[in-house]
Order: sequence, then C-alpha cells, then structure tokens
Amino acid sequence: QSNVTVYGIVDTGFIKETGSDVSMGSNIDNRIGFKGSEDLGGGYKATFQLEKRFNLNDGTIKGVDWEGASNVGIAGPFGAVRLGRLNELPTETFRKLDPFNQFGVGSMLLGSQRSTRISDTVRYDSPNFSGFKFGASYSLGKNTDKDSRDNAGTQLKLADADNDGYAVSLNYSNGPLYAVANWSRLADSKDSSVWNLGAFYKFGPAKVSLGYEKTHDKGYKLGSAKALKESTQDNWILGLQYAIGAGRINASFSYMDIDHARDWNDSKDIKKYSLGYEYDLSKRTTLYAMVSYSDFEDEAVSSFYRKSKDSDTVATDDSITGVQIGITHKF
Amino acid sequence: QSNVTVYGIVDTGFIKETGSDVSMGSNIDNRIGFKGSEDLGGGYKATFQLEKRFNLNDGTIKGVDWEGASNVGIAGPFGAVRLGRLNELPTETFRKLDPFNQFGVGSMLLGSQRSTRISDTVRYDSPNFSGFKFGASYSLGKNTDKDSRDNAGTQLKLADADNDGYAVSLNYSNGPLYAVANWSRLADSKDSSVWNLGAFYKFGPAKVSLGYEKTHDKGYKLGSAKALKESTQDNWILGLQYAIGAGRINASFSYMDIDHARDWNDSKDIKKYSLGYEYDLSKRTTLYAMVSYSDFEDEAVSSFYRKSKDSDTVATDDSITGVQIGITHKF
Amino acid sequence: QSNVTVYGIVDTGFIKETGSDVSMGSNIDNRIGFKGSEDLGGGYKATFQLEKRFNLNDGTIKGVDWEGASNVGIAGPFGAVRLGRLNELPTETFRKLDPFNQFGVGSMLLGSQRSTRISDTVRYDSPNFSGFKFGASYSLGKNTDKDSRDNAGTQLKLADADNDGYAVSLNYSNGPLYAVANWSRLADSKDSSVWNLGAFYKFGPAKVSLGYEKTHDKGYKLGSAKALKESTQDNWILGLQYAIGAGRINASFSYMDIDHARDWNDSKDIKKYSLGYEYDLSKRTTLYAMVSYSDFEDEAVSSFYRKSKDSDTVATDDSITGVQIGITHKF
Repeated sequence: QSNVTVYGIVDTGFIKETGSDVSMGSNIDNRIGFKGSEDLGGGYKATFQLEKRFNLNDGTIKGVDWEGASNVGIAGPFGAVRLGRLNELPTETFRKLDPFNQFGVGSMLLGSQRSTRISDTVRYDSPNFSGFKFGASYSLGKNTDKDSRDNAGTQLKLADADNDGYAVSLNYSNGPLYAVANWSRLADSKDSSVWNLGAFYKFGPAKVSLGYEKTHDKGYKLGSAKALKESTQDNWILGLQYAIGAGRINASFSYMDIDHARDWNDSKDIKKYSLGYEYDLSKRTTLYAMVSYSDFEDEAVSSFYRKSKDSDTVATDDSITGVQIGITHKF
Repeated sequence: QSNVTVYGIVDTGFIKETGSDVSMGSNIDNRIGFKGSEDLGGGYKATFQLEKRFNLNDGTIKGVDWEGASNVGIAGPFGAVRLGRLNELPTETFRKLDPFNQFGVGSMLLGSQRSTRISDTVRYDSPNFSGFKFGASYSLGKNTDKDSRDNAGTQLKLADADNDGYAVSLNYSNGPLYAVANWSRLADSKDSSVWNLGAFYKFGPAKVSLGYEKTHDKGYKLGSAKALKESTQDNWILGLQYAIGAGRINASFSYMDIDHARDWNDSKDIKKYSLGYEYDLSKRTTLYAMVSYSDFEDEAVSSFYRKSKDSDTVATDDSITGVQIGITHKF
Repeated sequence: QSNVTVYGIVDTGFIKETGSDVSMGSNIDNRIGFKGSEDLGGGYKATFQLEKRFNLNDGTIKGVDWEGASNVGIAGPFGAVRLGRLNELPTETFRKLDPFNQFGVGSMLLGSQRSTRISDTVRYDSPNFSGFKFGASYSLGKNTDKDSRDNAGTQLKLADADNDGYAVSLNYSNGPLYAVANWSRLADSKDSSVWNLGAFYKFGPAKVSLGYEKTHDKGYKLGSAKALKESTQDNWILGLQYAIGAGRINASFSYMDIDHARDWNDSKDIKKYSLGYEYDLSKRTTLYAMVSYSDFEDEAVSSFYRKSKDSDTVATDDSITGVQIGITHKF
C-alpha cells in the first residue's frame, strides 16, 4: 500500500547479570512502525509515524500503545515541525556518543532525568546549515489549572512540579566529526534539568567519543514523583568503536558521580566498563555479544542508581557483571 | 501485500476550553486500519476490516484494541452483510448533517444514547435503489441467562436492562439532496431508544443541513448503568458549509432540550454555536481552526450534559467556550 | 513494503451451548500478523514473525500483545532456530489429528497442561529427512534465584515449581500417512509433563486419525498455580474427515479419563461427539457449521474440566450440547 511503510526491529537473546538468573531480553528495543509522507508541492511534505514497542521474548507490550512514536508533521525548506509523541532531542543526539547507543548491558550509565520519548510535544528540527543542525521542543505539562479538577494535576501543582517541558539542541556533523550540545527540562519535573555536550571523531576504522552530562533532578519526572528525591549527577562517557571487516568492537568507560541524593550529603560514584562485539550477517541482521562490569562506590548508590532505572529492583550488590548475547534483525 | 490495505488518519493540535488549560487533542479520531476483500465470483466478495483508535498526542490507545472496526462480511448483488464490531447506523448516517461531523470542539450537541460503534452485531446494508439505501442491524446483548452465572449479566437482568439491540436506517441521496431517517435501540440499554431524521441540500458552494433527534434514555447504555438516570432529550442541528477555493467555512447552531433528568421535572436547554474553517493543503492533508460557545441554561444541565459525555469531568460552568486548531493527515 | 508480509484470519459467527445464551464467537482464532525473511546467502535466511490475537465480535485483544507469535530466527540447511514466543511443538503437531484442529465447539477434549504457545523459548526444527522431521524446544522458567528478589518467582521456588520447560517432537509425513510423537514439560509447571502419539491416513477423500495423550498435571502451569490440583489424564481422539466437492464433513469422538483430581481417588471420564461441515466459498473464505455433545460422568468432572479450560465458568451440567455456525476469511 503506497502511502504507508511498515518497518521494525526484532531483537532478542540471553542476559545474565549478577543477582539474576539467565533471562531472555533485547539489546535494541523491539518495535514495529508505520510511517509515510505526502508531497505537498513546493518542497513541502506532510509526514507521520506510529511505532509500537514490545518485548520479543514473551510478546508483551512495552509502554503505551505507540510508545516509540506517534506524530504528524510538516517538513519543508524551513526544516520540520512535528506534533505528538516523539524522541526527546537531548537523548536522541547524545546517545550517539555511546558505542552501545545506550542499549543492552553495555549501555553507558544514565542520568535519572533521561527520557527517550516525550508526549504532548511540538518539536522543530532545522535543515542542515553547512553541517550545523538546530532543534527545539516544547511539551505541555499535565493540566494543573484549578478549574480542571484533575487530582494528579492538583498534586503536581501543590508540589510546584507542574512545569511545561523545553529542550534545545545543537549539533555539528562534518566528515569525521560529530559534536553536540543540549539543554532540556522535562514536563512536570519540578524544573529538573539536564544539559550535555560531547563529540566523536572517526580515524579510519576507529571512532572515539567523549561526552559529559549534568543532571539536576528535583524528584519529579514527567508527572511522577520519584521515591528517591533530589540529586545532582555528573555523567561521563568515553567510547571507542573499531570496525574489522563485517564486525565492530565496541568499548566504553562511563563514570557517574551522584551528589546529595537521599540521606548522604557527600558524593558517591559509579564506574562502568563495557566491551562488546557485533557482526553483520547481512545488511539487516546482526549478531552481538557484550560484557560489562559496574562498580558502585557502596550499596547505597547501587540501590539509588538501579531504583531510578528500574522500579522492580532493589539492588544490594556493590558491583554488577552483565553478559548478553543475541541477534538483531531489521525490516 | 496484495490482500491487505493499510490506511489511517493522524490528527492533532491544541484545544482550549473554559475551565481547562491548553491541551493537545484531535479533531477527527486518530486511527490505523487493515482492510481487504476477496472476489468470490458472481458479483460476490468477502470483506474484512480491523481498525485501531488512539490518541496521537501521547500514543495511548482509545477503547478496545479494534475500537474502530472489527468485522468480516459478504457483499454481493443483495447488498452487504457484516458481522462483528462496526459503525452504528443512526450515528454513521446522521452525523453527516453536522458540518463538524460530530468531531472536535465544534461538534453539535450529542444525545446521551449516542454510540458510534457497536459490538456483537450483524449489520445489513442494501444496494442503492434509485438513490434509496436501507440498513438494519441486530446486536446481541450480554448473556443474561441465569445458567450463564455471569454477574454483570445477572445485574442487567435484575434491572430489566438486558435487551438486544436493533437499528433501522433509510436514506436518500440524489444530486444535491441527502435525507435520512433512523431508529435504534442499543443493546442492554433497558429499552432506551433514539430516532432521528434530517436532510442537507447543496446550493453551489453552500450546503445547508437540518436535523432532529429524539432520545429516550432509561439510564442504561451498552450494559453500563449510568450515574444519571432517565431523561428524554430533543436535539436539533442547523448547519452551513460554504466552500471557498481549497477551504471550507463551517457553521452550526445546535439546540438540546433535556426533560426530567435527575431531580428536575421541567425541561432545561443548551444552545451551542460553532464556527470553523478548514483548508486543504493537499488531497490528504488539511489544516483546521474552530471556535464554539455552549450556553447551558444552568449548572445542573451543564453537569448532566458533560457527565453523560465525559465521566472525568464534572462541569460547573454554565457556559463553555472552546477553541481548537490542528492538522489532519490521511494515509 | 517488500520486507514485510501482512497476513491474518478473521472468523466469527454464533455459538449456543447448554447453560449459555447465544453469543458471537470464533472458530479459528482471529489474528493479524507481520512476517518476513531476509536472504543471508549460502542457503541461510533470517526470519521474524509477530502475530496478534483478538476477538472479532467485540474488537478486544486476546492474551498478550503478540499472543500468536513474537520471534526472530535463522533458517538454513541445518533446519531452523527461532527465539522468543512461538507455537509449542506437541500442541502444534498433535492437533492435526483432530478434524476440528482443536478449534470451536467441535474441538476434541483437551488436557489441562495443553499450551498452544510458549514464551522465553528457543525452538529448533530439523529439515525434512525422507519424511522425518524432528523438533525440540527449551523455555526459561521465571527467574527464581533468591537474589532476584521477585515475589512470584520466590513463591514458585518455595513450591518447587520453578522448572525450565522442554519439548521434543518427532513426526513422519509421507504421502497419505502422518505420524507424530511428542514429549513436553511446560516451564514453571512443577515438572508436570505431557506425552502423546498418533497418526492419520488418507484414503481418497477420507482421512482417518487416531491419537492418544497422557498428561501428568502437578497443579502448576507456566508459573500459575491452578485452583484444581494434581491429576493424571488420558485423552483419546478418533477423527474422520471426508471431502465432498468444495466441502468437508468432519466427525470425531474424543474420550478423556481423569484420575485422582481434587477429592476423588478413582477415575472419572468424559465423552465428546462432534459433527461438522465446512464449505469453501473460495480459496480464502469458508463457511462452517458444527454440533457437539459432551457427556461428563458427573458434575464434579464437568466442573474440573471446564475450570481447567475457562476460569470464568463453573459448570454444573453433566452434559453440554454446543452448536456453532460462522465464516472464516484468510488474508
């Protein structure tokens, strides 16, 4: 059917982490999407994208129905404007500095205000100006007007956590160099904020990346109060990718420093070392294997970090080793 | 893939109504569908349709999984028979009299027994007889036999609200004239009923419509007991659509009179004035803007009307102004 | 879109069983799926399949989001390996002995450890060796390691019900003969097990089948504790299919003997007689009608059998007659 392209990724394999039995899980998020565009003439076009996310190992849905994307827009000489649910700019552009693209057990350490996608958003992407691209987004917070009599909104308002969301992003891509800087504030986050900057450079088969991200977490995120309150976080990622034939070796060191979280007033840190190998069986099918070691300064920071990432887990380990193998197929 | 057509509509924009902050929302319902047919020979064919509904602004599903349609059927010289979940005839045919097609803040006032789609239904649509078309549907109510030991069904039976549903529809379409008359009873509605009739006529660029609908609401609808009990309702719609180039001006006045609802024994009325403009960027992409003003006789009727429409809202305003802008893209 | 095939089945009609009013329901499960493959060269290919199940009559989803299939794999000269959610081998291969394919009111009696699909699984299918095919699968149980601190897993571990799942399957298909033997243990079933064997043979328009299945149910199934505890079950199916023109007559007798279930220490039996007719309107569209009579030895075994099949129903009838008509359309 000519107006719609059906596309997706299926990915699964096996994961073993300290403190858990072997389980099946994915590296790149599983998805199926429907997208298309219509030529409006004069260099303009209308676009749309709908994308579902799911767990391949058991067929369960992940997040909302169109977790991955749900938007309509207009693209033209001025750039592109999209409305709805879409990628958050700082995450979309910064994750490229991680050789593991923030997926799987090899993923860099992540700040607690990271969000891959945001709803109720208008996003603008500029055209390419001699390698420079600029982006900005505005997200509506939950309706907290008194007359709207919405209980969740009222709670947010009382906590002074009912802000709208904003992001600005600038990146430069030219030949071997990619550089990026972002600032963002998620909606309904009590004015929490994140900024980051970094770059990668390609030397023949090698790609070296370095990135830094600063997070001011005020204890709210996209309208949800977090069990663990305010903190400031510094995240560093140093990455190396090296291509050999149809494969790639990925290696990274990431470092995170967490200040003033919970009941500790000093700073505690986490170090993570990741090593992986990917092999392309074809243009659309890849096998992968990776291993990582996370070294938490103590159990308090381990629990804080893992709770902010995964509400089901209260980790008590002060180090975690993860191994993952699997297959990715794109269609 | 030749047996299936993927189609849909994506629509979002901004809505501001009295008593609520600005929010993102749609005009025409967002949907993606899969449909197809198979030639059986002799003028017969098998047909199917599956259609999902969702909110584009945040990617959440709307209603059941195939909220929009979920049916299989046979079409032929005799007309078409479909089984499953599909459009309710009176709503499908009567909403054409509203220039806003019962969508968005410009929508005409709606009776409390209105249902756009019904499940467990057999629907027949006649072929076109010199402009006349006839339709009928039969819907199974929830299983209320004592032996079925289904608690919801038992409650319906005790309340004498366990009727099957029926609808008949007749319309005439010839050149500039469209006229329609419907009668329906939703399943498990305690024998509530709706009938309506109306017509539109096209004079060059103008289309003028007039419709009337009578609702007898007994306090049940599709198996659910309503918080607000019995009432009778009279709904009027007077519509005007005027085409100018690639755009259309839409205007309507709708009037609703509600008798004997709740604890009031006289009748209370609502008046609604709507004005909008649509502009086609292309065959499949349209921009729209509209404004409406609803004048409720008092706060009691405001609360009754809005509760019957939207269970999340208890309105206390005796008038509501709504403004909406956005974009619709069909694929 | 060349990488994806969209396919499916829509099926609905009317069912009347003893103790229930007429309802709409399906014979073959309703589904829509997305599948594809990529040539990897050398006789190898990558494959994927995603398949949703739903109820056509009301548009509601059935099971998890990809209830029918959710897997990725590699096929080649060695056979095929798939990972994720897919058909359980013993059910997939044994149901062919039932003329009703274990669908609709005509379905053979089913053991309480039957599962059509399993998650977290690696499945291997051999190539065809002179008519012989071999298959095996391994399923991960829920994570029950102490350190995983998962409450459901902990309960399973305490009950000693946290086993991984396994299945092996062998079948022979050559001309008119099909023979099959299976052994399986579902994951997290407290080491419950099922084995079966059987065959069918085609004599011109007739196909005669005979199968036997033994179930040892220990009261757990795929991680869920069953209300009704341990039992052993013997299931027999004798089937006849007879082709006449574009139609087929289906007939079967199935017999089930249940030992030591609940509070009875002897064995109780069920007999079921089914008769049906299918008529192909075309290659993809079929009409069907069937009737069945189930004779339970007493109400205790009726309740046990139906509870194990359908948790919503506590049957008190010691015999059940079922009638079903409908239409199946494949796309």
